[in-house]
Amino acid sequence: MPRVTILTETELRSCVGLDPESVSIVEKAFASLATGGVIMPPILSMLIEERHGEVDVKTAYVPGLDSFAIKVSPGFFDNPKRGLPSLNGLMMLFDSATGIVRAVLLDNGFLTDVRTAAAGAVAAKHLAPAMVRTAGVIGAGVQAELQIRALRLVRDFSKLLVWARDPKKSEVYAAGMGRELGISARAVSTAEDVVRGAQVVVTCTPARQPLIQAAWLHPGLHITAMGSDASDKNELDPGIVLAADRFVCDRNAQSLKLGEMRAAAAAGLIGADYVADELGDICAGVKEGRGNDDEITVCDLTGTGVQDTAIAVHAFWVARDRGLGTVIES
Amino acid sequence: MPRVTILTETELRSCVGLDPESVSIVEKAFASLATGGVIMPPILSMLIEERHGEVDVKTAYVPGLDSFAIKVSPGFFDNPKRGLPSLNGLMMLFDSATGIVRAVLLDNGFLTDVRTAAAGAVAAKHLAPAMVRTAGVIGAGVQAELQIRALRLVRDFSKLLVWARDPKKSEVYAAGMGRELGISARAVSTAEDVVRGAQVVVTCTPARQPLIQAAWLHPGLHITAMGSDASDKNELDPGIVLAADRFVCDRNAQSLKLGEMRAAAAAGLIGADYVADELGDICAGVKEGRGNDDEITVCDLTGTGVQDTAIAVHAFWVARDRGLGTVIES
Repeated sequence: MPRVTILTETELRSCVGLDPESVSIVEKAFASLATGGVIMPPILSMLIEERHGEVDVKTAYVPGLDSFAIKVSPGFFDNPKRGLPSLNGLMMLFDSATGIVRAVLLDNGFLTDVRTAAAGAVAAKHLAPAMVRTAGVIGAGVQAELQIRALRLVRDFSKLLVWARDPKKSEVYAAGMGRELGISARAVSTAEDVVRGAQVVVTCTPARQPLIQAAWLHPGLHITAMGSDASDKNELDPGIVLAADRFVCDRNAQSLKLGEMRAAAAAGLIGADYVADELGDICAGVKEGRGNDDEITVCDLTGTGVQDTAIAVHAFWVARDRGLGTVIES
Repeated sequence: MPRVTILTETELRSCVGLDPESVSIVEKAFASLATGGVIMPPILSMLIEERHGEVDVKTAYVPGLDSFAIKVSPGFFDNPKRGLPSLNGLMMLFDSATGIVRAVLLDNGFLTDVRTAAAGAVAAKHLAPAMVRTAGVIGAGVQAELQIRALRLVRDFSKLLVWARDPKKSEVYAAGMGRELGISARAVSTAEDVVRGAQVVVTCTPARQPLIQAAWLHPGLHITAMGSDASDKNELDPGIVLAADRFVCDRNAQSLKLGEMRAAAAAGLIGADYVADELGDICAGVKEGRGNDDEITVCDLTGTGVQDTAIAVHAFWVARDRGLGTVIES
């Protein structure tokens, strides 16, 4: 009779947040990708066109961790019409030695938000210039907020530029983030204004056409592109993959299939066997991060199962230590 | 705040069994595969060699059903040394319209056992000869028991022959099944004795080498091969795919990758684009079942996500009607 701990979003939110500890956990997860032994199969993806929905399942086994997670992420894009969020989901934890289910984390996507933002912080930590005066963000949704909060954990900028398709949302976003972070935040009228005016830019959109052109790149710029995670998405001019001094991704196989490298390969600029540096190599010290203040660096994040396993294991043990959750014997 | 119903194995066992209703539900699930609209992505499979374990994730969206299931099936083969079962797992149900999680079925593999056995009954219903005097089974594990119980739901045999690698297990199996079903059940000394002496044979083993040779086939025989569900498994002489008058599978893509058609293709007997009749076509009336008493028919079952979705939706609504389960607000 396995004993399964059920944790709710409220309980998980009381245990885990977007803080230096989460960033460190995700950084170690990336490093484990480089140091070997991680098993991370291709994402299971089911597109349900008649419902305007999709479901992704991600997992990774990480040697040394006592459990592995499987995450289910449904996205049903008519939900807002019903007053429901588009994104949902849950994670399950399984004992690494026996495969027996240990916990069900009913996080409604919260842990995904945290580990995705934390990955942005990890990318900026290693690739952004040491001094960032102005940060930029393309998009004004939940991840745009989280990514800028995450960036603040690793770089101490005093200005923020934002552009999003909906100018009203940009204004609201700028006002809110400026107040929250105590910085000067401003909505600008083009994505170009953001890129030309910032040292770090994070793109957080579901764009299907490039929002950033290669011509706008300037010395000392770092871009983290975290929006593209499907074969129809694309945020960067494909030329940027080669135009940047350093192009880094979270996982080559995924970036070539779901991320910015897919668009570059489709445009014939790189081959289908192109190998970029992976963020994990940099976290593990196998490859170098930013080399100097003038380099142009780009990091493409598609989202990996190791991040899910790492954050879920952490959340579970914090919750367990605090005696949270409903234990079901089955 | 989604309300999620958690159901335990005990609760699920009180709602669902291996009975004509489950067979009918699985038969309709197969038919839906043939009549269109089903979305069934390739299985996500993670092999964890250092733990002697594997995890499979299956899913299918079936139009017309209010929910779809995602099933996680871990198999950790050192578990028996720890006094634990090798196979485990759970299913989740998601609202078909919104993707929001509706239930977590902590069934420890019970629903998989039922839907797998029910599929055997569906295959025999359409492909076995009308009159079966003697049934045969290769293997003496849990599925060998379930498959013979399932076969009894659709054919009224009075004799049973069993062969398994371990003669002691065969004897115990024969004694138990004979008593339970009130029939004459006998352990025999070779798989050939089973095949030559029976009108229906079910293979339920994890064999990696063929257990049944083409030379043993005889007019009026039906074989259901349900063991092979991985690219290293194989129960039938590859020649049987062509030697049978009718070779049917549950899903061509899966049989070619994980089932008996994989071995036949590897032996060069069929091409990688070979198309067998699918069981769903027969359930839906698109193709015919057994044509006459003398045909030699074979059905290869690898296990499909539509079976999981169908049995999980059924179990959930029966449990709900009875007020079972623990409801968690998250």
